[in-house]
Amino acid sequence: MAATKRLVLVTAAVLGTGPAAWADAGVSAETGYLLSTLLFLMGGFLVMWMAAGFTMLEAGLVRVKNVADICLKNISLYSLSCIMFLIIGYNLMYSGVGEGFGAGLVGLPSLWGGDDSAVLNDTPDFSAAPYAAGSDFFFQMVFVATTASIVSGTVAERVRLFPFLVFVAVLAGLIYPVEGAWHWGGGWLAGMGFADFAGSTVVHAAGGWAALTGALILGPRRGRYTPAGQIRPMPGSNLPMATLGTFILWVGWFGFNGASQLAFASAGDAVAVSNIFVNTNMAASGGVIAAMAATKLIYRKTDLSMVCNGALAGLVSITAGPDTPAPIIAMLIGAVGGVIVVLTVPLLDRLKIDDVVGAIPVHLLCGIWGTLAVPLTNDDASFTIQLAGVAAVGAFVGVTSAVTWLILKMTVGIRLHQEDEASGADLAELGLEAYPEFGSGSQKLRY
Amino acid sequence: MAATKRLVLVTAAVLGTGPAAWADAGVSAETGYLLSTLLFLMGGFLVMWMAAGFTMLEAGLVRVKNVADICLKNISLYSLSCIMFLIIGYNLMYSGVGEGFGAGLVGLPSLWGGDDSAVLNDTPDFSAAPYAAGSDFFFQMVFVATTASIVSGTVAERVRLFPFLVFVAVLAGLIYPVEGAWHWGGGWLAGMGFADFAGSTVVHAAGGWAALTGALILGPRRGRYTPAGQIRPMPGSNLPMATLGTFILWVGWFGFNGASQLAFASAGDAVAVSNIFVNTNMAASGGVIAAMAATKLIYRKTDLSMVCNGALAGLVSITAGPDTPAPIIAMLIGAVGGVIVVLTVPLLDRLKIDDVVGAIPVHLLCGIWGTLAVPLTNDDASFTIQLAGVAAVGAFVGVTSAVTWLILKMTVGIRLHQEDEASGADLAELGLEAYPEFGSGSQKLRY
Amino acid sequence: MAATKRLVLVTAAVLGTGPAAWADAGVSAETGYLLSTLLFLMGGFLVMWMAAGFTMLEAGLVRVKNVADICLKNISLYSLSCIMFLIIGYNLMYSGVGEGFGAGLVGLPSLWGGDDSAVLNDTPDFSAAPYAAGSDFFFQMVFVATTASIVSGTVAERVRLFPFLVFVAVLAGLIYPVEGAWHWGGGWLAGMGFADFAGSTVVHAAGGWAALTGALILGPRRGRYTPAGQIRPMPGSNLPMATLGTFILWVGWFGFNGASQLAFASAGDAVAVSNIFVNTNMAASGGVIAAMAATKLIYRKTDLSMVCNGALAGLVSITAGPDTPAPIIAMLIGAVGGVIVVLTVPLLDRLKIDDVVGAIPVHLLCGIWGTLAVPLTNDDASFTIQLAGVAAVGAFVGVTSAVTWLILKMTVGIRLHQEDEASGADLAELGLEAYPEFGSGSQKLRY
Repeated sequence: MAATKRLVLVTAAVLGTGPAAWADAGVSAETGYLLSTLLFLMGGFLVMWMAAGFTMLEAGLVRVKNVADICLKNISLYSLSCIMFLIIGYNLMYSGVGEGFGAGLVGLPSLWGGDDSAVLNDTPDFSAAPYAAGSDFFFQMVFVATTASIVSGTVAERVRLFPFLVFVAVLAGLIYPVEGAWHWGGGWLAGMGFADFAGSTVVHAAGGWAALTGALILGPRRGRYTPAGQIRPMPGSNLPMATLGTFILWVGWFGFNGASQLAFASAGDAVAVSNIFVNTNMAASGGVIAAMAATKLIYRKTDLSMVCNGALAGLVSITAGPDTPAPIIAMLIGAVGGVIVVLTVPLLDRLKIDDVVGAIPVHLLCGIWGTLAVPLTNDDASFTIQLAGVAAVGAFVGVTSAVTWLILKMTVGIRLHQEDEASGADLAELGLEAYPEFGSGSQKLRY
Repeated sequence: MAATKRLVLVTAAVLGTGPAAWADAGVSAETGYLLSTLLFLMGGFLVMWMAAGFTMLEAGLVRVKNVADICLKNISLYSLSCIMFLIIGYNLMYSGVGEGFGAGLVGLPSLWGGDDSAVLNDTPDFSAAPYAAGSDFFFQMVFVATTASIVSGTVAERVRLFPFLVFVAVLAGLIYPVEGAWHWGGGWLAGMGFADFAGSTVVHAAGGWAALTGALILGPRRGRYTPAGQIRPMPGSNLPMATLGTFILWVGWFGFNGASQLAFASAGDAVAVSNIFVNTNMAASGGVIAAMAATKLIYRKTDLSMVCNGALAGLVSITAGPDTPAPIIAMLIGAVGGVIVVLTVPLLDRLKIDDVVGAIPVHLLCGIWGTLAVPLTNDDASFTIQLAGVAAVGAFVGVTSAVTWLILKMTVGIRLHQEDEASGADLAELGLEAYPEFGSGSQKLRY
Repeated sequence: MAATKRLVLVTAAVLGTGPAAWADAGVSAETGYLLSTLLFLMGGFLVMWMAAGFTMLEAGLVRVKNVADICLKNISLYSLSCIMFLIIGYNLMYSGVGEGFGAGLVGLPSLWGGDDSAVLNDTPDFSAAPYAAGSDFFFQMVFVATTASIVSGTVAERVRLFPFLVFVAVLAGLIYPVEGAWHWGGGWLAGMGFADFAGSTVVHAAGGWAALTGALILGPRRGRYTPAGQIRPMPGSNLPMATLGTFILWVGWFGFNGASQLAFASAGDAVAVSNIFVNTNMAASGGVIAAMAATKLIYRKTDLSMVCNGALAGLVSITAGPDTPAPIIAMLIGAVGGVIVVLTVPLLDRLKIDDVVGAIPVHLLCGIWGTLAVPLTNDDASFTIQLAGVAAVGAFVGVTSAVTWLILKMTVGIRLHQEDEASGADLAELGLEAYPEFGSGSQKLRY
């Protein structure tokens, strides 16, 4: 009986027109299951690699005395985000949401009741599921860490390690999963038709709001803004390391956007993922060239850290809709992002919002820009709904982040003591130096 | 004609069970051959990338005066390992073993007789082989370099370059392939039912034993342990670089463990590889958080290099069995690894075993822990057999490594001269500086 | 008739012994389309990652005062190359070429007429195309940036940023696409049977010619060659960073060579790509060991930057024909490359050709060597035709590059002013320092 079925199937293919019957055949269910799983795994390790990118970017842009601390924050925030997403976030984001704001919380007990099935499926039933559940979990998990990484750069050089990690735990375990559920968990934003392909709003603007509230509640680094209203430059200590971080993020973004297609099981998926790769690359390139041109025009010199942020601005800007624009349009969307960053980095400083690495312009402002730009090339998207999604996520993440930061501030305290901030977080919190033999920087403070 | 084709296809669908006949179809032999080959190639380049990770980790943890030397050791040990595995190791490990200890040696002449077929198959016969032989060779080859990389970190800052490379040649060409043959070559350990999925024992503990014997026979760095019994700190010169190395190793480990499934040709493989990715990530995350918490509790400060080693400890710990635990258990297995490292790093120092980067705790001790932990989640594994495998590999690698180190010590000498060790391996062996313009470190010694 | 025969064969297979029936089946057209697309995407992100490798290599090999500038040059040249290739190069290279030198230019207007179809196909017609057009575009685009990256290293520390970028635009938009069209666009070199699998000539030697003309027209760094005929050493400022760059390039090269198979749709492709991976790795390993041995023999000390260049030399050498040699022969081809670099780096200095990172020996000389070595293992290649291709590409790229450099020199000027070169490009062009806190290097010049 089984042989008969198989015979008929293959005969059908063979009888087809064209030079080779097999050439007309599609993708079998199990092959599609394998390929979509592979897309998630490849995309997932690329996004995981972005954690190294954020670390290098931030370690390159802080001063020597805070380098080890920011490295530690990044490796631990990645780890903690993954753990929080495993034990709370994933079920919160993908189980029982869709009916409204609080419904996501229904998922919570299912975890503690041992519902591992959401994470690991034991029966590889390719006729029922389009990919291995574990690969999807892996891909979603590494996204959470990205959201948290955005925050660490903004609040660097003054936030204390452990309160920061408590904030990360809340962000990764509660705040992100709830707003993520609204869109990707099939919640009310998805129902409205909100379009955010890979997370300009859900990931980047969300991380940016969390960073902005942190910067406001923490206050600027001591000495950053003089009483006379001057801005004291605090240049990054290792610019090639920041450049490396930018390149790591760039290559990781192919996974971030590409695997957000969520399937690689048909020629249509192949076309979509390919176009996403091209557009992601063109948007970053556009951001680089635009940021370089803008700094040259405004300041008469170009600026490496601004150009790196231009690349990231381009990447964030295209993330909401990397699948629909023509490549040249993707380049322009990214270029606008690059200009936004060049114009708003000094603006934040004028507002005395101290954002050490420029994460708020890059992730929040370009995240908003990218989300609002989707209707330009995607007829299924509406500007009003995009704006509503941006506002809703902003309000929710802004309020919950602020409340979390404020509770931490009022209880354990979030800020380094004055002398610790002066001597640097490395000595104060870790008792070591990032570069103990490299000249004047931190050693002067020690000896 | 088109109508006829359509009719037949529809007939096929109707005759099949389920909604669509094609949806029930599996993976064809050639498709499976391609996907398993792809798994090896992707896993292989990720493991190759780990060579960069070891280089960055070790370059970040040695002092400035030995940085270029450790970079050179790492790039040359990788190259030499690959060459040795090509001309001796692969045939030794995978041909004619299985009958006993010495049987592997039978493979040796077949190479010199030109048996390239073991490496490259010219006829892509997908009905006979599950994947391209070259992809398997590539994946196995990059594993050897990992084993050798473990050694270089422990014996850094005092071992001479060329004797070290002779040791690597013996390790990659003879020691590793023989013990590897016992398990992965289908030898007696495999026959007993020893379970070491991706090499907690076969790769990591083996490298750790080779490192331990090297550390014992070389002795500690001069000045490391004072006559009064004090331990002089010799802090790593570039901690963000060590952090980068940790992240590189982490991302490479997805290939290390994931592609050790050795197949990606069925939905079951997809589920397995996905779970392995998740568990690998959770174990590393567990190692990070556990090492951070343990250092905080014991020393009241956290320590970045310890946390990096915690990540690696988690990764090594899960490597013997990344396929069976639930993610939360994988996290705990990794966390135990992280605690092991925090507790044993000072213990080694108390024993005056000078392990520059902490490779012995990470790779040897966590390799053993990971191997012994397999029966906790895998009913097919026996604690006694795991212990036997650990002991057998330890005895064999320990003895053969010690003999190799001792022969080198008695003939060409393995240790830098006192003045060379003081001025640093970079000047002594390479005649250059790693960072000629970066402040006091090495320049003081020179001028 | 063909259909009937096929039917019988497949029927026989299906009716055969149970599990074996499906085991004889091949790859369906759509599955092949997906897998070949995946090969391009994976290869593409690996080659894109090489941009980070060039950046780290060059940032590690220039002096502190020019580090930020070289990072900026690399990130902007990558971006600009991609944009130029999108708006001009791709159509120039792949449309309407094949009839002769100028025919490629026909492709140009089609772009401005909006012929996006060359880049993005909207209908994923897997019976007509072997892969998604966007994935092919992505892969070809990242190759262009490699060509341009080669130039930046040679002319570092003295070329001005914006004239350099104009050169890059010409190289990526016109020079590379025209000579690339001769071979990969199906032009006259392809017609002759020129064999350059992944671009030893088309990419590496081409970039090397552009670099050589630049070095000649720019002249050496001030002070590099004393009037007395001495060579003043100007050591690289960060050797572990250069080592990291080498490893990045190495891992990226698996994509560079492997995905140049252009298909992953049959077991034959799987065998080919696997062998390419193995040979790429062995050639680099051979280059490392040969460069190490050669420097040791000639100078009595090994040299890290020479060994890194040895790895790259091996990689460039195998790139023209990574598919045909046995692995041991690939290793030897790479080893010859490593020796070439060791011998020719001082030769260039004797000719007062100042090549900051050694890109001319690595990319130009080993590119030529690799191209000429193809007939050794590939019976389809002719030494005469290889030589003709090398000469033609050399003449064309050499002349067009020289003209471009000369026009730039005579109009806007290409060289930093004397005082800017002395204080460094970072301060002069960017107004910042790459490592503001790291000791003496750049700070002495500033304060």
